[in-house]
Amino acid sequence: MRAEVVSVGTELLLGQIVDTNAAYLGRALSEVGVAVYHRTTVGDNRARLVAALREALDAADVVFTIGGLGPTQDDITRDALSEATGIPLALNEGIARELQEFLRARGAEILNSQLRQAYVPVRGWHLPNPNGTAPGLVFELPSKLAIALPGPPGEFIPMLEHAALPILRQRTGTATIRSRVLRVCGMGEAAVEDRVLDLMASDNPTVAPYAKTGEVHLRVTARGDNGEEADALAAPIIAEIQRRLGDHLYAYDDEPLEAAVVRALIERRQTVATAESCTGGMLAGRITDVPGSSAAFPGGVVAYSNGLKVAMLGVRDETLRSHGAVSREVAMAMASGVRERVGADYGIGITGVAGPDGGSEDKPVGLVYIALADPDAVDVTENRYRGIRSDVRLRATQTALTMLRDRLLLSA
Amino acid sequence: MRAEVVSVGTELLLGQIVDTNAAYLGRALSEVGVAVYHRTTVGDNRARLVAALREALDAADVVFTIGGLGPTQDDITRDALSEATGIPLALNEGIARELQEFLRARGAEILNSQLRQAYVPVRGWHLPNPNGTAPGLVFELPSKLAIALPGPPGEFIPMLEHAALPILRQRTGTATIRSRVLRVCGMGEAAVEDRVLDLMASDNPTVAPYAKTGEVHLRVTARGDNGEEADALAAPIIAEIQRRLGDHLYAYDDEPLEAAVVRALIERRQTVATAESCTGGMLAGRITDVPGSSAAFPGGVVAYSNGLKVAMLGVRDETLRSHGAVSREVAMAMASGVRERVGADYGIGITGVAGPDGGSEDKPVGLVYIALADPDAVDVTENRYRGIRSDVRLRATQTALTMLRDRLLLSA
Repeated sequence: MRAEVVSVGTELLLGQIVDTNAAYLGRALSEVGVAVYHRTTVGDNRARLVAALREALDAADVVFTIGGLGPTQDDITRDALSEATGIPLALNEGIARELQEFLRARGAEILNSQLRQAYVPVRGWHLPNPNGTAPGLVFELPSKLAIALPGPPGEFIPMLEHAALPILRQRTGTATIRSRVLRVCGMGEAAVEDRVLDLMASDNPTVAPYAKTGEVHLRVTARGDNGEEADALAAPIIAEIQRRLGDHLYAYDDEPLEAAVVRALIERRQTVATAESCTGGMLAGRITDVPGSSAAFPGGVVAYSNGLKVAMLGVRDETLRSHGAVSREVAMAMASGVRERVGADYGIGITGVAGPDGGSEDKPVGLVYIALADPDAVDVTENRYRGIRSDVRLRATQTALTMLRDRLLLSA
Repeated sequence: MRAEVVSVGTELLLGQIVDTNAAYLGRALSEVGVAVYHRTTVGDNRARLVAALREALDAADVVFTIGGLGPTQDDITRDALSEATGIPLALNEGIARELQEFLRARGAEILNSQLRQAYVPVRGWHLPNPNGTAPGLVFELPSKLAIALPGPPGEFIPMLEHAALPILRQRTGTATIRSRVLRVCGMGEAAVEDRVLDLMASDNPTVAPYAKTGEVHLRVTARGDNGEEADALAAPIIAEIQRRLGDHLYAYDDEPLEAAVVRALIERRQTVATAESCTGGMLAGRITDVPGSSAAFPGGVVAYSNGLKVAMLGVRDETLRSHGAVSREVAMAMASGVRERVGADYGIGITGVAGPDGGSEDKPVGLVYIALADPDAVDVTENRYRGIRSDVRLRATQTALTMLRDRLLLSA
């Protein structure tokens, strides 16, 4: 089965947003064994979109569109697909009623334009959108489908996973590409590659490293006549990589480092509390992004000012005066302080210079101290990160999570 | 002048990398007044690439290719462009010599395949690549250009900026497209469009709305013979939009809501403190992502557990017991508590059900109470958000920032 992808939006052409949905769709389609040879990006112009859709329909068994399904005049995908496929649209009373109820419940005005979202193809069906107002649409031609998905990633991803991919799985039968991502922390890309270089020569499965901020991903992709065959091909290579990377391999596929850490804490029935200065709540934000994290994370303090470091974390004035707010000693006092005050098993303290201002020769932008306290001891690391403010902050949270994970593995 | 963009690489179609180069190119072209109506992404397949290039050359004055210029067999852009334009390639002795010296200096083997990078079009020229081995290529047709740039962003961006854009600037004369983004909070997309619908009929400048999570962006794009003319065309429309949207228009271009709020606080020499439950530090993280935010944000508390809501924020056990942790009353007590304990002018309290678990009929996933305390009063809003956990959390921080901004405007 062959797919074409049409991304819709002038903001994509102007580069005002990066098309992460198309990349997500590419990964998803390869995993269900659907080939994509070609992707087109067009602006909010009906004639050009219709032309692109006709070409795509000529070339493929299934055409995906991304974006342009909303209520405004710029949202032209619905009408363009109707024109390109020759399948008219009709008002779906059920969707219209739901839409009106939804808007009424939010106290929003019900504009006529909103009702455009209740029109669906007369040959085909619609895909529910629990996360937004515009349903997805499937236009059904004799031997082809056109599937229209909304552009906001929070709507696009769930609809793709739960409504669109099942349609394809049903139609593709068995030939399958399976990809697994092995997530590695505490090692650089070159070091990871050095350990698996010989495995990267393999044709099926293939092994490829990708550098991410503060971690490395190894993608193992196998092709087989069916999922089982592909998995059987991948298994020995994955086992060999596990052997070579040991504990640096922290999780598989979509599990981010914070989720692996929360999982490890919950397994041990332990908790962590955070005291953040330069990361300003970002570490707590990452931890609480994990569903169920409340069992492992009672809370923390964002102590941006020195006053709060003293009042809420018990850092001594004397320590701040003699070593400065960005110091090993203050990071350690923050970690111990938050651990004791929250009553957690572990405490993390982070203080540093995120930039762009506030650096000095002694304490340059990118210098971050990270301390980890447990009942027996406090460890601290000095880190020097490169990059802009947001990079420094993200890398600091990554190091903190890696330190906690290492400690949890030691105590296992 | 009209451009087409062809991104080359199977890894783009498979979604293994996100095409940030194409977004960068889109921004750059719009700034020099070159229109892009269409972008194509093709894999490493010569026949399909040649077909895409022929179509692009038919439609545009200049065709950009990104990627596929390296030494490996997968790197087919050079040959495909030669075939599509009918312009042969010839070995450039100077490039070949440089390449051999470069590889020798690094102790690398000189493979014949490396020399593919020394072939350049016989009608056209090449663009130096100080950051890699493959030069860029310009194929010159009677009234068109095809410009081939390398894929690694560290080579692509400098070559675009220093070699490719100057060619276009020379050819376009002074025609310029200028875009401004007007950022709107506290109104939905349909409501915004309703107020500016007549302006959206304008051809130059164009006005287009984009829905973002918790806010709406209006893009005003003007074309002129030069930057001044474009700005002069845009100014009256921007002024009219300002008049119609009033305080809902919170910032321009790249300034996010948290930066506008921090700016307003600093102007008033005021501060805010945060007490977060379901957003778990994400609001503090957004505020501290703004450089210089320490002047407006002493800190806050992430009180995920009920124990911390009591111990660190002074919420009364009684309030938690009788109303539950997710309630108006607790949000208000959190906001007042953090304001007093931190000694800030404003306090924000957020408590809710981010999901996917923890919802009930009474208190479903997406229900979030947000309170704002100042010295005189505490306001609270009840919000019902749709979407996955990360959406609920992001929308809650967006509402909190909007509430604070509204209060700051009132007090001005």
